[in-house]
Parts: sequence; C-alpha cells; structure tokens
Amino acid sequence: MSFDFDAWLSTQKTRVESLLDQRLNRVATHAPARLVEAMRYSLMAGGKRLRPILVLAFADAAARATQGGGEPANDAAVAVEMIHTYSLIHDDLPAMDDDDLRRGRPTNHKVYGEAMAILAGDALLTDALASVAGGPGGRPEVRAALTHELAYAAGARGMVGGQVLDIAEDRPAELDYLVRLHRMKTGALLKAACRMGAIAGGASTEQLAAADRFGDSIGLAFQIADDVLDVTASAETMGKPTGADADAGRHTFPAVVGLERSRALAKEHAQAAVSAAQAFETTPGALAALAVYSVERSN
Amino acid sequence: MSFDFDAWLSTQKTRVESLLDQRLNRVATHAPARLVEAMRYSLMAGGKRLRPILVLAFADAAARATQGGGEPANDAAVAVEMIHTYSLIHDDLPAMDDDDLRRGRPTNHKVYGEAMAILAGDALLTDALASVAGGPGGRPEVRAALTHELAYAAGARGMVGGQVLDIAEDRPAELDYLVRLHRMKTGALLKAACRMGAIAGGASTEQLAAADRFGDSIGLAFQIADDVLDVTASAETMGKPTGADADAGRHTFPAVVGLERSRALAKEHAQAAVSAAQAFETTPGALAALAVYSVERSN
Repeated sequence: MSFDFDAWLSTQKTRVESLLDQRLNRVATHAPARLVEAMRYSLMAGGKRLRPILVLAFADAAARATQGGGEPANDAAVAVEMIHTYSLIHDDLPAMDDDDLRRGRPTNHKVYGEAMAILAGDALLTDALASVAGGPGGRPEVRAALTHELAYAAGARGMVGGQVLDIAEDRPAELDYLVRLHRMKTGALLKAACRMGAIAGGASTEQLAAADRFGDSIGLAFQIADDVLDVTASAETMGKPTGADADAGRHTFPAVVGLERSRALAKEHAQAAVSAAQAFETTPGALAALAVYSVERSN
Repeated sequence: MSFDFDAWLSTQKTRVESLLDQRLNRVATHAPARLVEAMRYSLMAGGKRLRPILVLAFADAAARATQGGGEPANDAAVAVEMIHTYSLIHDDLPAMDDDDLRRGRPTNHKVYGEAMAILAGDALLTDALASVAGGPGGRPEVRAALTHELAYAAGARGMVGGQVLDIAEDRPAELDYLVRLHRMKTGALLKAACRMGAIAGGASTEQLAAADRFGDSIGLAFQIADDVLDVTASAETMGKPTGADADAGRHTFPAVVGLERSRALAKEHAQAAVSAAQAFETTPGALAALAVYSVERSN
C-alpha cells in the first residue's frame, strides 16, 4: 500500500493546531487578554501549516535511527508558525502591503488596529524564540542550536532582509535578483524548518546537509508555484485577491521568465527536494510527498 | 580611594558602543545595506546604555568568585540594547506614540519611512536573539538560558505586554496598575539585564535571587525617576519634548500619587537595589552606584 499523503497531512495539521493552541494558552496566563486575542486571531486562522509540518516530518524521519524529536521539535514547529504569522501581520500593515484580507478574513490591523497588530506581531516573534530557547525537555545545546537556526533565518540576513529587498524601489526585473530575494524572504524560514526538524531528530551530518538542500529547493519551488497560482488560480480558491502581485507592480517569476518556464523551474526544484529526501526515506514517504505538494497544490 | 563612578560609566559606555558596532558589522555582511543603515541609525544614536552596562556589571561582579562572563555576557549586553532600541523604534511609529524626535534627532520612520522602521525594529529584535543563542564561545546551556531570559522578558508576558497595557483605553489611574504596567514595560528588560549578567558570570543561586531583586527595584526606580524628569527637566536636558506624558493623557507616577510621593518612592526602590547589590559587593561599588544613578540622573 502506498503512502496516504492526504490522511497524513490532515493528521499533522491537527497535531500542529493542537500545539499552537497549547502554546497560546501558556502565554495567556501572564499576558494582557486583548494582546493574546490578537495573537490568536492570526495564529489560528488556518493555513497550510507547511512550516511546522516540515519540522515534525524531518524530526520524525531523522528520529527513526536515533532519538525522537520530542519537546524541542514540537516547540520549534510552533515557533516557526508563530514567526510566519508575525511576518504576515506586519506585511499586511498599511505602511507595507496595506492588505485588508488574509485567508478570507479581515487582516489583523483591520480588526485590532495598527498599534495592536504591530505589537501582536512583535509578541509572536519574541515568544516563539522564548519557547524554543527555554521550553521544558530536551538538551540545552539542542535548544540553543534550534533558536539560532530560527532567529538567524528570520532576521536581517533572512526573512526580514528579503522583505526589504521586496519593497526596494530599485529592484531589477531579473531572475537572479528574484531568486536571491525569495531565498531570503520565504526560503530561509522554510529551510530553517527542515534543518530544525533534522537537528531535533538527531540527524547525521549527511542528513543535515540533505535537509538543507531539501529546504532550499522546496523554498524556491513553493514561491514559484505561489507566483504561478497568483496568475492562474481564482480568488475563491486562494482566499485572497489574485493577480495582486502584478497589480502591485511586484516582480514575479511568471512576469520575469514567463509562465511555462516558471512551471518548469518549480518542478525542477521540487524534483531536487525529492532527491534530497532520499537521505531520510528509502522509499518515497512524507518528505517526498511534501516536495511534490509544494508545486502541485491548488492554493 | 572611593569608587570613581563617572570614569567607570564612561569606560563601560565606550565598551558597549564598540560591541554594538562590531555586531552591526557582522550582520551587515549578509543583509541589505539600507536595512543595516536603518538599524545602525537608531542603535548608534547614543543613550545611557544602562541595560548593557547592567549586564556587564553583574557579569563582572559575579565572575569575581567564578569564571568571567566572556562572550555570552558581551552578546547578552549587545542584545538587550538592540531589543531596547527596537522597542523605541516601534513605540515612535505613527500608529503608536507618533513621535518625531528621539534623542534630539528625527525618529527612525521620519528618516527611513514607516515600512523600513517596522522592519529595522523586527530585525534588531530577531538578530539580538540570534546572537545570544548562537554566538561563538560559552557553554550552550548558558546561551539557551540567556536567550530564554531575554525573550521571555521582551515578549507578551513582559515588555510587549506592558506596552499593550500602556495604550489600553480603559487603564485606571491607580498606583497598582502603574506598577504592574511598568514592571512589564520597562522593568522586565532591566531585570533580565541583571539576571543575564549574573547567569553569564556564574552567579550562585543566592546571587541570582539578589540580581532579580536588584533588577525589579531599579526598574521601578528608573521609571518613576523618568516620570519625575518628564515633569521637572527641560527639553534641552532630556533631548526630547518634556511634559509629553501629560499631553498624551498618559498616567504617570506624579499624576497618580503626586511629585513628592513619587520622589520618595523612587528613592525607596533605589535603596532596595543598593541593599540587593550587597550579595555581589562587600563595599559599595559599580552596582550600588548604578542603583543610586537610576534616580539621581539629570536625563
């Protein structure tokens, strides 16, 4: 019987949402209620949960040969989704993309106001890193390594740096620049998710290098597929207005290299991720399926 | 010969500014130049550097009996100032306090625009925690502990939570509420600075508890003194408009309990910090002097 990816994905999503809920409840015991409500509004708004699922999948895959990913993997999974969510809240602000809708619902600042949206984002980022560094269970050296992976990937040399490149006025319409931008803006966090799972699961040096390659490839595959979907999918399927990238004058892969070349590039990168997964899976399993899913999804 | 506090403070400030500069240079090697420029603009704008100096002073004081604070103490000192700076950048935003001036210069968003100011703040916060978690040198368990101290203090249960209480519309004009607000908004980070220094310096359990009491007391003393200065000092001395708290309808200690009672409260808390310092200093030294300075400064 082949691997039932849909059932597995659904189980993982439920697992992640339960962990996110527990995390919010822990923060809520000593934080202002309105702040926690704003954090919860965006964190529990659904979404694919791809980043935390990557953490758990790599931890599980690596842990077959060694110890389980345990609490550090759970905390890292929650944290990467909290950081992804904070980045969406800040990106949606009027000073940035000025978006009113996210996942079919009003954006955070539309509901809670700009000040609270800024602070909810700040808190999601900060408390994400607090829990990875200091949660219970696991060895401190693993927690220090996971925290560094995540914070480095999310900072000026990763996600935030990529966002700066994305809003720069003088950005060139070139493939090299797009690839660099997205390696930082979305790729760094996806790669950190894979690496954190591998580290928490006790991966070998070779496996960690493969997780790195997988993360880099799936990051580009995912972003190119996103750009393609923005052109081809309907607003209903995506839960947000489509064609928005072009309207915003944003350079996309289809705009720079065309739709067909973009599709081919996405597939190439997904295939590279499938190959990298072989360091963890002797027969194609969850990791290979996730690589394919990154480009074949409909939203 | 008694302890020359002014000379010591000046030396420590130079030491901190050199560490901050080194840190920015390290981030700059892999981050967009404009982002690093915006980070540098606010991080190198001067200021008392009280938080990093507290880290280093506690590390040095604790290390007399054990090992030196070393790289983890330096990284924690830099990080707490980066996080303090990020909080000022975000607090000054139009959606928050909407301030045009900070330390006598235009605020970050006035120079770089709102989007970049949000991102510069995000990056300062994130990379601060990255360097504490993953800098070179020191034991990983110390780095994990320091990162957790700092992130917990800066998050929803600390500084960000306090900022939410400060902008709440229904905040009562009561001393208890003010104390709770400032324990979170400014106190948590000051306390974390003291605790991080103690931890990096290898403090005993008793010393760590004393660092905690010192931090709590100096946090309140410092904030009450700030409120008093806002009423009594000239704009020139403060480098920002004074009387601004009252204009903004913000509850302050003088407004809630009067000027004389506020001064007495600040002194009480400073005295409690002086007492706590005795766990580290057999004769009054840098820590005791810092406690007195927190209420007797002129800006």
